[in-house]
Amino acid sequence: MQDIDKVLDFIIEIEKLKNVQRKTRPVGLDRFENSAEHSWHVCLAALMLKDSANEVIDINRVIRMLLIHDLGEIDAGDTIIYQSETPELKAKEYAGLKRLFDMLPNNQGTEFLELWLEFEAGMTPDAKYAKAIDRLPPLLHNLHGAGHSWKQHQISKEMVFKVNSRIAQGSEPLWHNLEDKLNQAASDGLMA
Amino acid sequence: MQDIDKVLDFIIEIEKLKNVQRKTRPVGLDRFENSAEHSWHVCLAALMLKDSANEVIDINRVIRMLLIHDLGEIDAGDTIIYQSETPELKAKEYAGLKRLFDMLPNNQGTEFLELWLEFEAGMTPDAKYAKAIDRLPPLLHNLHGAGHSWKQHQISKEMVFKVNSRIAQGSEPLWHNLEDKLNQAASDGLMA
Repeated sequence: MQDIDKVLDFIIEIEKLKNVQRKTRPVGLDRFENSAEHSWHVCLAALMLKDSANEVIDINRVIRMLLIHDLGEIDAGDTIIYQSETPELKAKEYAGLKRLFDMLPNNQGTEFLELWLEFEAGMTPDAKYAKAIDRLPPLLHNLHGAGHSWKQHQISKEMVFKVNSRIAQGSEPLWHNLEDKLNQAASDGLMA
Repeated sequence: MQDIDKVLDFIIEIEKLKNVQRKTRPVGLDRFENSAEHSWHVCLAALMLKDSANEVIDINRVIRMLLIHDLGEIDAGDTIIYQSETPELKAKEYAGLKRLFDMLPNNQGTEFLELWLEFEAGMTPDAKYAKAIDRLPPLLHNLHGAGHSWKQHQISKEMVFKVNSRIAQGSEPLWHNLEDKLNQAASDGLMA
């Protein structure tokens, strides 16, 4: 009973991710996306695109990674992918994540902290694929939203390609598909 | 390449779930919850409470169920759990779900349509547990939000207990924990 109370406190605490604002607007919506709905979106995207992964992946682990990948933002806030990831920021996210998972009973959070570290390192097949999928929605939001975030944050074609070509490490077919769309978008003046 | 385009269209289309408003406010937020962020929240709740399930469950199937369980609302809208579920409404949700999954290539959507039907029927251990978890967040929102939705929709203690005691079919420990909190909330005047 006491254990369930601890988990319920965790469940309430992570609701704060619904209040973390990201830098793009979902297609067709006027407001910015939040990190909780983004986390749901990338889980389903990963599930439906799983056959496009370069390597053998465990999609259930990938989904768990994506369910928790942004929880550190509750304490650290969201950062646009084009901003350099400083060690200080990552340390802040890890500390935030640790604070949350320490709320759980019986060291239940340990495996999720390890999963997050694996995601951040981006070296395993699961992490490479999860990271590729994480980059997809902001691209779609810009492609179908007049490049609103690229323009607002002055992101050039070179930066878009430099940062997102990493998608190819997780899924070459997905990156090749997006490459064409991004080239077209640059020609159409959607980037800074 | 053509297959990836179809999946990308699906990924964009399901963004509309971010615009489906539910009937409760997340703890600490002034706005109503949307069904996309709710879907993320119940996935993590299910994962962290999995040891409280009454029967042996496949948590990965449960998470998939919960990732897709509200997609039918894109066409049918959200309904409060205290409203009777009419066959017409369920048919509308199924049609909406079918429209979405038909966007996917190679009959990829078939397994998810079946998973949704299993969830709705609520007879298997996975579905019973998933349905129990689905009912948890609105209770927490009311318990920690002055019963705002119970009061607005004139939900009595009897209705709260009648509808939510079904949680015990998926997790008796969870229901017993909540029962105490709900009795206290009723004494405190949080229900209609």
